[in-house]
Amino acid sequence: MTPRKLKVGLIGTGFMGRAHVLGYAAAARTFETAAALELDCVADLTADAAAAAARAFGIPRSTGNWRSLVEDPEIAIVDVTAPTGLHRDMVLEAIAAGKHVYCEKPLAPTAAEALEMAEAAKRAGVTTQVGFNYLANPILRVARGMIAAGDLGEIYSYRGIHAEDYMADSAGPITFRHDPVGGGALGDIGSHALATAEFLLGPVAAVMGDCRTVISERPGADGFPQQVEVDDVSRAFLRFESGVTGGIEANWCATGRTMQHDFEVYGSKGALVFSQERLNELHHFTVDAPTGRRGFRKIEAGPDHPPYGRFCVAPGHQLGFNDLKAIEIAGFAAALAGEVPEPFGFRSGHRIQRLVELIQDSASLGQWVEV
Amino acid sequence: MTPRKLKVGLIGTGFMGRAHVLGYAAAARTFETAAALELDCVADLTADAAAAAARAFGIPRSTGNWRSLVEDPEIAIVDVTAPTGLHRDMVLEAIAAGKHVYCEKPLAPTAAEALEMAEAAKRAGVTTQVGFNYLANPILRVARGMIAAGDLGEIYSYRGIHAEDYMADSAGPITFRHDPVGGGALGDIGSHALATAEFLLGPVAAVMGDCRTVISERPGADGFPQQVEVDDVSRAFLRFESGVTGGIEANWCATGRTMQHDFEVYGSKGALVFSQERLNELHHFTVDAPTGRRGFRKIEAGPDHPPYGRFCVAPGHQLGFNDLKAIEIAGFAAALAGEVPEPFGFRSGHRIQRLVELIQDSASLGQWVEV
Amino acid sequence: MTPRKLKVGLIGTGFMGRAHVLGYAAAARTFETAAALELDCVADLTADAAAAAARAFGIPRSTGNWRSLVEDPEIAIVDVTAPTGLHRDMVLEAIAAGKHVYCEKPLAPTAAEALEMAEAAKRAGVTTQVGFNYLANPILRVARGMIAAGDLGEIYSYRGIHAEDYMADSAGPITFRHDPVGGGALGDIGSHALATAEFLLGPVAAVMGDCRTVISERPGADGFPQQVEVDDVSRAFLRFESGVTGGIEANWCATGRTMQHDFEVYGSKGALVFSQERLNELHHFTVDAPTGRRGFRKIEAGPDHPPYGRFCVAPGHQLGFNDLKAIEIAGFAAALAGEVPEPFGFRSGHRIQRLVELIQDSASLGQWVEV
Amino acid sequence: MTPRKLKVGLIGTGFMGRAHVLGYAAAARTFETAAALELDCVADLTADAAAAAARAFGIPRSTGNWRSLVEDPEIAIVDVTAPTGLHRDMVLEAIAAGKHVYCEKPLAPTAAEALEMAEAAKRAGVTTQVGFNYLANPILRVARGMIAAGDLGEIYSYRGIHAEDYMADSAGPITFRHDPVGGGALGDIGSHALATAEFLLGPVAAVMGDCRTVISERPGADGFPQQVEVDDVSRAFLRFESGVTGGIEANWCATGRTMQHDFEVYGSKGALVFSQERLNELHHFTVDAPTGRRGFRKIEAGPDHPPYGRFCVAPGHQLGFNDLKAIEIAGFAAALAGEVPEPFGFRSGHRIQRLVELIQDSASLGQWVEV
Repeated sequence: MTPRKLKVGLIGTGFMGRAHVLGYAAAARTFETAAALELDCVADLTADAAAAAARAFGIPRSTGNWRSLVEDPEIAIVDVTAPTGLHRDMVLEAIAAGKHVYCEKPLAPTAAEALEMAEAAKRAGVTTQVGFNYLANPILRVARGMIAAGDLGEIYSYRGIHAEDYMADSAGPITFRHDPVGGGALGDIGSHALATAEFLLGPVAAVMGDCRTVISERPGADGFPQQVEVDDVSRAFLRFESGVTGGIEANWCATGRTMQHDFEVYGSKGALVFSQERLNELHHFTVDAPTGRRGFRKIEAGPDHPPYGRFCVAPGHQLGFNDLKAIEIAGFAAALAGEVPEPFGFRSGHRIQRLVELIQDSASLGQWVEV
Repeated sequence: MTPRKLKVGLIGTGFMGRAHVLGYAAAARTFETAAALELDCVADLTADAAAAAARAFGIPRSTGNWRSLVEDPEIAIVDVTAPTGLHRDMVLEAIAAGKHVYCEKPLAPTAAEALEMAEAAKRAGVTTQVGFNYLANPILRVARGMIAAGDLGEIYSYRGIHAEDYMADSAGPITFRHDPVGGGALGDIGSHALATAEFLLGPVAAVMGDCRTVISERPGADGFPQQVEVDDVSRAFLRFESGVTGGIEANWCATGRTMQHDFEVYGSKGALVFSQERLNELHHFTVDAPTGRRGFRKIEAGPDHPPYGRFCVAPGHQLGFNDLKAIEIAGFAAALAGEVPEPFGFRSGHRIQRLVELIQDSASLGQWVEV
Repeated sequence: MTPRKLKVGLIGTGFMGRAHVLGYAAAARTFETAAALELDCVADLTADAAAAAARAFGIPRSTGNWRSLVEDPEIAIVDVTAPTGLHRDMVLEAIAAGKHVYCEKPLAPTAAEALEMAEAAKRAGVTTQVGFNYLANPILRVARGMIAAGDLGEIYSYRGIHAEDYMADSAGPITFRHDPVGGGALGDIGSHALATAEFLLGPVAAVMGDCRTVISERPGADGFPQQVEVDDVSRAFLRFESGVTGGIEANWCATGRTMQHDFEVYGSKGALVFSQERLNELHHFTVDAPTGRRGFRKIEAGPDHPPYGRFCVAPGHQLGFNDLKAIEIAGFAAALAGEVPEPFGFRSGHRIQRLVELIQDSASLGQWVEV
Repeated sequence: MTPRKLKVGLIGTGFMGRAHVLGYAAAARTFETAAALELDCVADLTADAAAAAARAFGIPRSTGNWRSLVEDPEIAIVDVTAPTGLHRDMVLEAIAAGKHVYCEKPLAPTAAEALEMAEAAKRAGVTTQVGFNYLANPILRVARGMIAAGDLGEIYSYRGIHAEDYMADSAGPITFRHDPVGGGALGDIGSHALATAEFLLGPVAAVMGDCRTVISERPGADGFPQQVEVDDVSRAFLRFESGVTGGIEANWCATGRTMQHDFEVYGSKGALVFSQERLNELHHFTVDAPTGRRGFRKIEAGPDHPPYGRFCVAPGHQLGFNDLKAIEIAGFAAALAGEVPEPFGFRSGHRIQRLVELIQDSASLGQWVEV
């Protein structure tokens, strides 16, 4: 059977733009689905920049006007990697034009906008995907499967972290990530910690937050010190609907950390420990081991953990960051082909954004807030 | 100069009793102070049990009545390793008899009792020590020194954990550690996490807690299910007097963990990461390293980190748990000789107990509580 | 400037065939060279298999006859991923047809054949590449650069390993890897250990080997036990031309190991420790650190270590196995464009094959052998 | 039953002298045997030095003349921690006086002397012990037990290392460890690697060595450069009597390493990986784990691994270097009481010394040598 070709229009050519381009290329060569996604057009701020990106990325067409891309009848899927503040307009126009939409996280600066986008997508019946790519890690899927299958028994507690150090230098200037609307560490990377927490343990029911600014002033666009209004470090207690409780931390001033997206889950029969710093490893403890032989076992990602085998037939050879994007894209393609349910669509993206805001609210109130 | 001999009476012969015995033996052979502590008498519940312990431990005298030990004029120091509920009476009588007192943690089941003990000691002018032995780790002293010296720059955030799994089995019976007065994971091991946090970063000014029971029933003394009234997992947000914020977790149901007494400190110029699971290592990041050569450096404990060299002249050979007790005891001896200030006395022990209760209070209130 | 397009014909569609396909796709989208390599045709054993691979991999043309691919005037580069025993004929015909050749390792079953191929390529003036892809790891290039720059001072010793467990099961049947001509662990993966050793420390001048068969019989093609004539575990002492000495081990029966491609280099001023099990990390020790602060530093791959930044702008996000192939291919493209010297061509491939045979010879003789 | 008291005379008060003192103190308080070893007298080069050591270590008597200690009828056991060159005379006189002898490793500078000592001890019927204290690690005993029980199946291969960096500085002067008779890295620490190899896998039957001097000159006693005549780095291939083969490395110029006493054992059903750098952990792989759940399991030392429980009732609390000495001493006491066979006596000590010399011989010859 020949897969149905679906042409993709990509908006944005930065860090995540390139990661998407590599993802489409790898996904097309590693996965088999009835929907073949083809990058057909790229939009950037100017026609020249877009044309240069098209050449570099091997994309046939380009445009300096994202609206023309969105309205192009050739395009079936709009892929948005532009700054968060622009997501809403791009996405809503794409949906209005009947396109399926793949949008980088966070879905929108506010939960209200995210909800608007999710509802528009639902009304239009289009398929959506938000780019929480750490969830695409095969080893995370193993973790979720083990928890769901009861391998850990009754879950006792959860601990999650997403810490990096890209804002640890106080001489670093104010950026769009410091925008009081939608900015801050909790929204930027705490959202990953929240997505992983719900991916593993289901919906969060209540939160209590602690949001802190540790670098109170940074150089503004004019070079003069400007007040920082967003959180650098946030912590939250979580109560899941299941009754399980846990804690997370988001920290973009964690000097020395480049990718501390970690979790630990403890249950009556076992435990799982993971760090994105070593993203091809899952550490598993089970009480079923013989006396004196117990311990955390380092499971290395391999072909027994789909879809690792799509990339490499041998265990231990390791996937990289960009491979996770390819898996995410392949999942989106499979959803478009109706082969799997929508993996992490706009409703999920809205949910994470809402949790971010509720944690911020609870921190302001100094009280728990129900979801 | 011949050191002044001070005779010690030890109450209790269990887990910590033996650790103390080994500690005295090692301290006497590794440290030089003007006060030489000698185990002279041991008290247990019965005369026979005490006599057996005396033989096993090489202690000259024994008694089945702790009061006779406390009142014995030969004894200069009373060392209490009995269950927490008995600490107050033993300690107050020892102080009344003019003894210096070394007491295992937690100092008392309640902050009120701990305060009473601390004030009695102060009035009597005796020297005291509470057994938070993880603080005796040379590598922790390195960490504190680096923070104090500004090696990490301005401190941004703190993360602390003490997790073990000795209560993870729901078939495990109710013990004295489940006593509603003074029991629970936060008091038992969260106290270690709090002690380390204050040891490194100074006094805590405000707390917000989340205290959870995850195994709601356990077999009681009669074999029938009994309700558990204490926390199994507790988390807290901390605000230090310095303005730094952090979080801790106490967890005695962390299946698979035997000694996860960990901390991470992040600052503007560097970071420190430690785990008691590998207690001879301190991981240090500094921004002063050359571009492309940065990373966490694994510092291995060695003679450059006093008093490691007292135990071994070669680095990397490693101290064990019991060696930390020897260091604690040597510090107490040095304090008794007036060579150093009281390291972690009853006022500190009271402080930790008070933090435990305030965290519990804040969890009940669902609000931050000032210290 | 528009890069010059060079069409590639790929022979073979197995494990390494797919890795090459992904490599071309990623290389084209991440690197900028004057030579743009385009997969144009794929050859497999039958026309149907080749056509299926062409569809799966997005390659325009296919053929069931590798000779027609090799002779096709459209094709500028022949890429050989067929079994080792077929390399010689394919490569020599490709060279005869004036093609540049990219060939998977090992270059040939015997050093004699490898030499024949290398000399043919030299006479024809074509550019060649052998696929020792671990050498493409940015962090290995950092290691080589540090050694060359004298960061480790005078080199004292070297230790290298390549151990996996894909032959550890004695019930596993005889395969082409057990062919007495060119088979065995030393040739299959010891070759990687040798390539890395010479990549870091320069040419080996003398060897002393120990080659052992630990599973003496395996099921043959007919199901009956067949004698194994090749090594499962080999060790060698190495003396480099520089005078440095070291040791390597090759082991395909290392139960539990999936990718233990490790090395340790010790010098007068520092040391480097690497494991392919965590391929984005390089551990560096320098004596220049302050007293009491020394230790191995975990350097995480990042944009400071080219060409990592081509794949990801953020450090710590990690490259995977297939990314190394993309870097290798990009290096070949750059060599074809005359931008860099031939990275690891047929002369290097021959050299490794020769070392393999000399180690086998020395093991048979029980004596050191000069290279 | 009251244990029989046996008085010990200790010769030497340096690094290992202190470790022994701590070991006796801890052993007496943690183990129960019918033979109670009591340090009664200490000998050093001068009466003053010995008296100072006696005070520091709490030993009743002292002497500046080791012969008077050896001949003292009160003394039942002579413990020799003096430099290796003095071992023979001290030990032979002690044996002549009917004493049991505990001697630090290496037993003697030459295998001939070691044999003389072993045979004298055998003739006299005294009990002996050589201080290869890493063998006392409970986790090593677990490893040996697992291998002996067939948990790893048929053993395929072995890899052992003992590397430190205490001679890595070329400015470091010539010491007694550089004595052409008995000096060098292989004898000093390679002996540990050999002892562990035989402890785990039984007797070695043949060796092939490579012994190298990497720092050819060092400051002599007069400050002028002096030629180094011993090995800094040695490697050996080993063939055990069982037919298993392996390799070891001894290296005292491994810059950055403080205690790399490591081994890896691979078998048909599993594998064990150990590093003395984390001496309380044993990593175990078994093929019996479910598909997709395999991996190396980190077993942490605990009460399930005797005699760990003698030191601490809780797992994960960790033993240190000095605790291993206490276990060794307790084993010697148990042997003296007839409760266990002689653990690692002079015959074993001679065996290790002989292997050292045979490896040196084979390196000189450039050929394998049978044991």
